[in-house]
Amino acid sequence: MDSKNQDIDGLIALMAKLPGMGPRSARRAVLHLIKKRALLLTPLADAMFAVAATARECLVCGNIGTRDRCDICEDTRRSNGQICVVEDVADLWAMDRSGVFKGRYHVLGGSLSALDGVGPEELRIPALIRRVLDEEITEVILALNATVDGQTTAHYIAEQLEEAGVSVTSLAQGVPIGGELDYLDDGTISAALRARKAV
Amino acid sequence: MDSKNQDIDGLIALMAKLPGMGPRSARRAVLHLIKKRALLLTPLADAMFAVAATARECLVCGNIGTRDRCDICEDTRRSNGQICVVEDVADLWAMDRSGVFKGRYHVLGGSLSALDGVGPEELRIPALIRRVLDEEITEVILALNATVDGQTTAHYIAEQLEEAGVSVTSLAQGVPIGGELDYLDDGTISAALRARKAV
Repeated sequence: MDSKNQDIDGLIALMAKLPGMGPRSARRAVLHLIKKRALLLTPLADAMFAVAATARECLVCGNIGTRDRCDICEDTRRSNGQICVVEDVADLWAMDRSGVFKGRYHVLGGSLSALDGVGPEELRIPALIRRVLDEEITEVILALNATVDGQTTAHYIAEQLEEAGVSVTSLAQGVPIGGELDYLDDGTISAALRARKAV
Repeated sequence: MDSKNQDIDGLIALMAKLPGMGPRSARRAVLHLIKKRALLLTPLADAMFAVAATARECLVCGNIGTRDRCDICEDTRRSNGQICVVEDVADLWAMDRSGVFKGRYHVLGGSLSALDGVGPEELRIPALIRRVLDEEITEVILALNATVDGQTTAHYIAEQLEEAGVSVTSLAQGVPIGGELDYLDDGTISAALRARKAV
Protein backbone atom coordinates (compact mmCIF):
# COMPACT_ATOMS: atom_id res chain seq x y z
CA MET A 1 0.00 0.00 0.00
CA ASP A 2 1.36 3.37 -0.97
CA SER A 3 1.36 6.59 1.01
CA LYS A 4 -0.20 8.39 -1.89
CA ASN A 5 -2.78 7.37 -4.36
CA GLN A 6 -3.00 6.33 -7.99
CA ASP A 7 -4.47 9.60 -9.26
CA ILE A 8 -1.84 11.63 -7.47
CA ASP A 9 0.98 9.30 -8.48
CA GLY A 10 -0.21 9.48 -12.08
CA LEU A 11 -0.24 13.26 -12.03
CA ILE A 12 3.27 13.34 -10.55
CA ALA A 13 4.53 10.93 -13.21
CA LEU A 14 3.11 13.13 -15.99
CA MET A 15 4.40 16.37 -14.47
CA ALA A 16 7.87 14.81 -14.22
CA LYS A 17 7.88 14.52 -18.03
CA LEU A 18 7.83 18.29 -18.49
CA PRO A 19 11.14 19.82 -19.55
CA GLY A 20 13.11 21.00 -16.52
CA MET A 21 11.08 18.88 -14.12
CA GLY A 22 12.18 15.76 -12.31
CA PRO A 23 10.44 13.45 -9.83
CA ARG A 24 11.22 15.72 -6.87
CA SER A 25 10.10 18.97 -8.45
CA ALA A 26 7.03 17.23 -9.86
CA ARG A 27 6.05 16.10 -6.34
CA ARG A 28 6.54 19.63 -5.04
CA ALA A 29 4.50 21.06 -7.91
CA VAL A 30 1.67 18.58 -7.37
CA LEU A 31 1.49 19.28 -3.62
CA HIS A 32 1.42 22.98 -4.43
CA LEU A 33 -1.36 22.39 -6.96
CA ILE A 34 -3.43 20.42 -4.44
CA LYS A 35 -3.02 23.19 -1.86
CA LYS A 36 -4.14 25.75 -4.42
CA ARG A 37 -6.87 23.65 -5.92
CA ALA A 38 -9.37 26.38 -6.78
CA LEU A 39 -6.80 29.03 -7.64
CA LEU A 40 -4.40 26.97 -9.70
CA LEU A 41 -5.17 23.27 -10.22
CA THR A 42 -8.62 23.57 -11.79
CA PRO A 43 -7.78 26.67 -13.89
CA LEU A 44 -4.63 24.93 -15.11
CA ALA A 45 -6.57 21.82 -16.15
CA ASP A 46 -9.12 24.05 -17.92
CA ALA A 47 -6.39 26.00 -19.70
CA MET A 48 -4.74 22.76 -20.83
CA PHE A 49 -7.99 21.48 -22.29
CA ALA A 50 -8.54 24.78 -24.07
CA VAL A 51 -5.06 24.70 -25.57
CA ALA A 52 -5.33 21.01 -26.47
CA ALA A 53 -8.55 21.78 -28.33
CA THR A 54 -7.46 24.93 -30.15
CA ALA A 55 -3.69 25.08 -30.61
CA ARG A 56 -2.45 24.42 -34.10
CA GLU A 57 0.53 25.12 -36.29
CA CYS A 58 0.22 28.02 -38.70
CA LEU A 59 0.20 26.49 -42.19
CA VAL A 60 2.28 29.36 -43.55
CA CYS A 61 5.01 30.01 -41.02
CA GLY A 62 4.85 27.19 -38.46
CA ASN A 63 4.07 29.47 -35.49
CA ILE A 64 1.61 28.09 -32.95
CA GLY A 65 -1.75 29.79 -32.72
CA THR A 66 -5.40 28.88 -32.86
CA ARG A 67 -6.12 29.26 -36.57
CA ASP A 68 -4.74 27.85 -39.80
CA ARG A 69 -2.94 31.16 -40.32
CA CYS A 70 -1.46 32.71 -37.20
CA ASP A 71 -2.06 36.32 -36.11
CA ILE A 72 1.28 37.43 -37.54
CA CYS A 73 0.61 35.93 -40.98
CA GLU A 74 -2.89 37.48 -40.93
CA ASP A 75 -1.56 40.93 -40.02
CA THR A 76 -1.26 42.79 -43.33
CA ARG A 77 0.90 45.50 -41.70
CA ARG A 78 3.61 42.88 -41.31
CA SER A 79 3.82 42.23 -45.04
CA ASN A 80 6.99 44.37 -45.42
CA GLY A 81 9.01 42.00 -47.56
CA GLN A 82 11.06 40.66 -44.63
CA ILE A 83 11.04 37.09 -43.38
CA CYS A 84 12.88 36.16 -40.20
CA VAL A 85 13.88 32.49 -40.16
CA VAL A 86 14.07 30.81 -36.72
CA GLU A 87 14.62 27.25 -35.58
CA ASP A 88 11.78 26.91 -33.11
CA VAL A 89 8.54 28.54 -32.06
CA ALA A 90 10.23 29.55 -28.80
CA ASP A 91 12.75 31.53 -30.85
CA LEU A 92 9.93 33.22 -32.76
CA TRP A 93 8.31 34.25 -29.47
CA ALA A 94 11.65 35.52 -28.15
CA MET A 95 12.25 37.59 -31.31
CA ASP A 96 8.73 38.95 -31.18
CA ARG A 97 8.99 39.92 -27.51
CA SER A 98 11.86 42.22 -28.43
CA GLY A 99 9.36 44.06 -30.66
CA VAL A 100 12.06 45.25 -33.07
CA PHE A 101 11.26 43.05 -36.05
CA LYS A 102 8.13 44.12 -37.93
CA GLY A 103 8.01 41.50 -40.68
CA ARG A 104 6.91 37.90 -40.78
CA TYR A 105 8.51 34.71 -39.54
CA HIS A 106 9.33 31.24 -40.75
CA VAL A 107 9.86 28.42 -38.26
CA LEU A 108 12.14 25.66 -39.54
CA GLY A 109 11.33 23.21 -36.78
CA GLY A 110 14.98 22.49 -35.95
CA SER A 111 18.34 22.67 -37.66
CA LEU A 112 20.12 20.48 -40.19
CA SER A 113 22.04 17.72 -38.48
CA ALA A 114 23.90 14.97 -40.28
CA LEU A 115 24.38 13.22 -36.94
CA ASP A 116 20.65 13.10 -36.15
CA GLY A 117 19.69 12.48 -39.78
CA VAL A 118 17.86 15.80 -40.17
CA GLY A 119 17.94 16.90 -43.81
CA PRO A 120 16.31 19.89 -45.57
CA GLU A 121 13.13 17.88 -46.21
CA GLU A 122 12.67 17.20 -42.49
CA LEU A 123 12.71 20.95 -41.86
CA ARG A 124 10.46 23.56 -43.43
CA ILE A 125 13.20 24.69 -45.83
CA PRO A 126 11.37 23.84 -49.10
CA ALA A 127 8.35 25.78 -47.77
CA LEU A 128 10.65 28.74 -47.05
CA ILE A 129 12.05 28.74 -50.61
CA ARG A 130 8.49 28.64 -51.95
CA ARG A 131 7.43 31.55 -49.74
CA VAL A 132 10.41 33.62 -50.85
CA LEU A 133 9.46 33.08 -54.48
CA ASP A 134 5.69 33.48 -54.06
CA GLU A 135 5.44 36.37 -51.60
CA GLU A 136 7.21 39.60 -52.49
CA ILE A 137 10.18 39.02 -50.24
CA THR A 138 13.18 41.32 -50.34
CA GLU A 139 15.16 40.18 -47.30
CA VAL A 140 15.54 36.88 -45.47
CA ILE A 141 16.98 37.36 -41.98
CA LEU A 142 18.49 34.17 -40.59
CA ALA A 143 18.02 34.23 -36.80
CA LEU A 144 19.39 30.75 -36.18
CA ASN A 145 21.21 29.59 -33.10
CA ALA A 146 24.94 30.30 -33.03
CA THR A 147 25.68 26.57 -32.87
CA VAL A 148 27.43 24.44 -35.46
CA ASP A 149 24.10 22.99 -36.66
CA GLY A 150 22.46 26.41 -36.71
CA GLN A 151 25.26 27.89 -38.78
CA THR A 152 25.30 24.91 -41.16
CA THR A 153 21.59 25.44 -41.69
CA ALA A 154 22.15 29.15 -42.31
CA HIS A 155 24.76 28.44 -44.96
CA TYR A 156 22.56 25.86 -46.64
CA ILE A 157 19.61 28.28 -46.80
CA ALA A 158 21.81 31.12 -48.09
CA GLU A 159 23.05 28.80 -50.84
CA GLN A 160 19.53 27.78 -51.81
CA LEU A 161 18.43 31.40 -52.02
CA GLU A 162 21.44 32.57 -54.02
CA GLU A 163 19.48 32.85 -57.27
CA ALA A 164 16.22 34.08 -55.76
CA GLY A 165 17.33 37.71 -55.87
CA VAL A 166 16.74 38.44 -52.19
CA SER A 167 19.26 39.70 -49.69
CA VAL A 168 20.07 37.11 -47.04
CA THR A 169 21.31 38.46 -43.72
CA SER A 170 21.96 37.00 -40.31
CA LEU A 171 21.95 38.33 -36.76
CA ALA A 172 25.11 40.13 -35.69
CA GLN A 173 27.43 38.23 -33.38
CA GLY A 174 29.22 40.00 -30.56
CA VAL A 175 29.20 40.89 -26.91
CA PRO A 176 25.70 40.61 -25.37
CA ILE A 177 24.31 43.80 -23.78
CA GLY A 178 25.37 43.76 -20.14
CA GLY A 179 27.88 41.02 -20.89
CA GLU A 180 31.22 41.00 -19.11
CA LEU A 181 34.24 40.13 -21.23
CA ASP A 182 35.69 37.94 -18.52
CA TYR A 183 32.67 35.62 -18.68
CA LEU A 184 32.49 35.35 -22.47
CA ASP A 185 33.86 32.42 -24.41
CA ASP A 186 36.75 32.90 -26.82
CA GLY A 187 34.54 32.40 -29.87
CA THR A 188 32.29 35.30 -28.94
CA ILE A 189 35.22 37.57 -28.16
CA SER A 190 36.93 36.87 -31.48
CA ALA A 191 33.64 37.29 -33.39
CA ALA A 192 33.07 40.63 -31.65
CA LEU A 193 36.63 41.71 -32.41
CA ARG A 194 36.38 40.78 -36.09
CA ALA A 195 33.09 42.70 -36.39
CA ARG A 196 34.37 45.76 -34.49
CA LYS A 197 32.89 49.14 -35.34
CA ALA A 198 34.21 52.72 -35.28
CA VAL A 199 32.92 54.56 -32.20
CA MET B 1 -1.76 41.79 -31.83
CA ASP B 2 0.31 39.19 -30.11
CA SER B 3 2.43 36.45 -31.62
CA LYS B 4 0.65 33.91 -29.47
CA ASN B 5 -2.90 33.65 -28.37
CA GLN B 6 -4.95 34.19 -25.25
CA ASP B 7 -5.43 30.51 -24.43
CA ILE B 8 -1.75 29.79 -24.80
CA ASP B 9 -0.72 32.94 -22.92
CA GLY B 10 -3.11 32.01 -20.12
CA LEU B 11 -1.67 28.52 -19.86
CA ILE B 12 1.88 29.91 -19.77
CA ALA B 13 0.90 32.38 -17.03
CA LEU B 14 -0.57 29.58 -14.91
CA MET B 15 2.36 27.23 -15.48
CA ALA B 16 4.74 30.00 -14.41
CA LYS B 17 3.07 29.95 -10.98
CA LEU B 18 4.28 26.43 -10.26
CA PRO B 19 7.17 26.20 -7.80
CA GLY B 20 10.48 26.12 -9.64
CA MET B 21 8.99 27.51 -12.84
CA GLY B 22 9.47 30.97 -14.30
CA PRO B 23 8.14 32.62 -17.45
CA ARG B 24 10.86 31.10 -19.63
CA SER B 25 10.55 27.53 -18.37
CA ALA B 26 6.75 27.85 -18.51
CA ARG B 27 6.95 28.80 -22.19
CA ARG B 28 9.26 25.85 -22.87
CA ALA B 29 6.94 23.52 -20.99
CA VAL B 30 3.86 24.75 -22.87
CA LEU B 31 5.53 24.37 -26.27
CA HIS B 32 6.55 20.85 -25.25
CA LEU B 33 2.96 20.13 -24.16
CA ILE B 34 1.56 21.37 -27.47
CA LYS B 35 4.01 19.22 -29.39
CA LYS B 36 3.01 16.19 -27.31
CA ARG B 37 -0.67 16.94 -27.26
CA ALA B 38 -2.05 13.41 -27.27
CA LEU B 39 0.74 11.89 -25.21
CA LEU B 40 1.09 14.53 -22.53
CA LEU B 41 -1.18 17.57 -22.69
CA THR B 42 -4.57 15.85 -22.64
CA PRO B 43 -3.54 13.13 -20.13
CA LEU B 44 -2.10 15.84 -17.87
CA ALA B 45 -5.32 17.87 -17.99
CA ASP B 46 -7.32 14.70 -17.24
CA ALA B 47 -5.02 13.80 -14.35
CA MET B 48 -5.37 17.29 -12.92
CA PHE B 49 -9.14 17.10 -13.04
CA ALA B 50 -9.07 13.71 -11.36
CA VAL B 51 -6.85 14.97 -8.57
CA ALA B 52 -8.85 18.19 -8.20
CA ALA B 53 -11.98 16.10 -7.76
CA THR B 54 -10.65 13.47 -5.38
CA ALA B 55 -7.64 14.73 -3.40
CA ARG B 56 -8.33 15.51 0.22
CA GLU B 57 -6.49 15.83 3.48
CA CYS B 58 -6.63 12.84 5.81
CA LEU B 59 -8.66 13.94 8.82
CA VAL B 60 -6.39 11.97 11.15
CA CYS B 61 -2.84 12.66 10.04
CA GLY B 62 -3.00 15.42 7.41
CA ASN B 63 -1.56 13.26 4.59
CA ILE B 64 -3.08 13.80 1.16
CA GLY B 65 -5.12 10.96 -0.29
CA THR B 66 -8.54 10.39 -1.72
CA ARG B 67 -10.52 9.45 1.37
CA ASP B 68 -11.24 11.02 4.75
CA ARG B 69 -8.71 8.61 6.24
CA CYS B 70 -5.59 8.02 4.17
CA ASP B 71 -4.27 4.57 3.24
CA ILE B 72 -1.66 4.70 6.00
CA CYS B 73 -4.19 5.53 8.72
CA GLU B 74 -6.48 2.78 7.37
CA ASP B 75 -3.69 0.19 7.38
CA THR B 76 -4.08 -1.69 10.67
CA ARG B 77 -0.60 -3.21 10.31
CA ARG B 78 0.81 0.27 10.86
CA SER B 79 -0.79 0.62 14.27
CA ASN B 80 2.48 -0.15 16.07
CA GLY B 81 2.40 2.60 18.67
CA GLN B 82 4.75 4.87 16.73
CA ILE B 83 3.89 8.27 15.29
CA CYS B 84 6.37 10.08 13.08
CA VAL B 85 5.81 13.85 13.12
CA VAL B 86 6.72 15.77 9.95
CA GLU B 87 6.26 19.35 8.84
CA ASP B 88 4.80 18.79 5.40
CA VAL B 89 3.19 16.13 3.25
CA ALA B 90 6.32 16.14 1.07
CA ASP B 91 8.32 15.12 4.16
CA LEU B 92 5.85 12.30 4.86
CA TRP B 93 6.25 11.02 1.30
CA ALA B 94 10.05 11.26 1.60
CA MET B 95 10.03 9.32 4.90
CA ASP B 96 7.71 6.73 3.44
CA ARG B 97 9.81 6.25 0.31
CA SER B 98 12.70 5.16 2.51
CA GLY B 99 10.43 2.31 3.65
CA VAL B 100 12.10 2.05 7.05
CA PHE B 101 9.38 3.51 9.23
CA LYS B 102 6.44 1.16 9.74
CA GLY B 103 4.18 3.28 11.97
CA ARG B 104 1.83 6.17 11.30
CA TYR B 105 2.46 9.81 10.55
CA HIS B 106 1.31 13.20 11.69
CA VAL B 107 1.69 16.21 9.40
CA LEU B 108 1.97 19.51 11.28
CA GLY B 109 1.49 21.71 8.22
CA GLY B 110 4.58 23.82 8.92
CA SER B 111 6.72 24.81 11.86
CA LEU B 112 6.31 27.28 14.71
CA SER B 113 7.55 30.70 13.71
CA ALA B 114 7.26 33.79 15.89
CA LEU B 115 8.34 35.87 12.90
CA ASP B 116 5.55 34.62 10.64
CA GLY B 117 3.04 34.50 13.50
CA VAL B 118 2.65 30.73 13.34
CA GLY B 119 1.64 29.41 16.79
CA PRO B 120 0.72 25.89 17.96
CA GLU B 121 -2.94 26.47 17.08
CA GLU B 122 -2.06 27.23 13.45
CA LEU B 123 -0.31 23.86 13.21
CA ARG B 124 -1.82 20.47 13.93
CA ILE B 125 -0.09 20.26 17.32
CA PRO B 126 -3.26 20.05 19.47
CA ALA B 127 -4.47 17.24 17.20
CA LEU B 128 -1.15 15.46 17.74
CA ILE B 129 -1.46 15.69 21.53
CA ARG B 130 -4.99 14.31 21.30
CA ARG B 131 -3.84 11.41 19.10
CA VAL B 132 -1.03 10.56 21.52
CA LEU B 133 -3.52 10.39 24.38
CA ASP B 134 -6.32 8.61 22.46
CA GLU B 135 -4.40 6.07 20.38
CA GLU B 136 -2.05 3.71 22.18
CA ILE B 137 1.10 5.57 21.32
CA THR B 138 4.43 4.60 22.84
CA GLU B 139 6.86 6.67 20.80
CA VAL B 140 6.67 9.99 19.01
CA ILE B 141 9.49 10.42 16.47
CA LEU B 142 10.09 14.04 15.56
CA ALA B 143 11.28 14.13 11.93
CA LEU B 144 11.30 17.90 11.63
CA ASN B 145 13.63 19.95 9.49
CA ALA B 146 17.01 20.74 11.02
CA THR B 147 16.25 24.47 10.86
CA VAL B 148 15.81 26.89 13.77
CA ASP B 149 12.02 26.83 13.36
CA GLY B 150 11.96 23.06 13.01
CA GLN B 151 13.99 22.58 16.17
CA THR B 152 11.90 25.13 18.11
CA THR B 153 8.83 23.15 17.09
CA ALA B 154 10.48 19.89 18.18
CA HIS B 155 11.26 21.33 21.62
CA TYR B 156 7.76 22.70 22.02
CA ILE B 157 6.17 19.33 21.17
CA ALA B 158 8.56 17.46 23.46
CA GLU B 159 7.56 19.82 26.28
CA GLN B 160 3.86 19.34 25.63
CA LEU B 161 4.25 15.56 25.67
CA GLU B 162 6.36 15.48 28.85
CA GLU B 163 3.52 14.18 30.99
CA ALA B 164 1.91 11.95 28.40
CA GLY B 165 4.19 9.02 29.26
CA VAL B 166 5.50 8.45 25.73
CA SER B 167 9.09 8.48 24.60
CA VAL B 168 9.86 11.39 22.32
CA THR B 169 12.78 10.92 19.91
CA SER B 170 14.15 12.81 16.97
CA LEU B 171 16.12 11.90 13.84
CA ALA B 172 19.86 11.59 14.30
CA GLN B 173 21.98 14.42 12.99
CA GLY B 174 25.30 13.77 11.30
CA VAL B 175 27.09 13.29 8.02
CA PRO B 176 24.70 12.31 5.20
CA ILE B 177 25.44 8.99 3.45
CA GLY B 178 27.79 9.76 0.57
CA GLY B 179 28.47 13.21 2.03
CA GLU B 180 31.95 14.70 1.75
CA LEU B 181 33.27 16.47 4.82
CA ASP B 182 34.71 19.29 2.77
CA TYR B 183 31.23 20.22 1.50
CA LEU B 184 29.46 20.06 4.86
CA ASP B 185 28.66 23.12 6.94
CA ASP B 186 30.28 23.58 10.36
CA GLY B 187 27.03 22.91 12.21
CA THR B 188 26.66 19.45 10.68
CA ILE B 189 30.29 18.58 11.33
CA SER B 190 30.11 19.58 14.99
CA ALA B 191 26.78 17.76 15.43
CA ALA B 192 28.31 14.63 13.88
CA LEU B 193 31.38 14.96 16.11
CA ARG B 194 29.33 15.37 19.30
CA ALA B 195 27.24 12.31 18.40
CA ARG B 196 30.25 10.19 17.42
CA LYS B 197 30.00 6.43 17.86
CA ALA B 198 32.49 3.69 18.62
CA VAL B 199 33.41 1.78 15.44
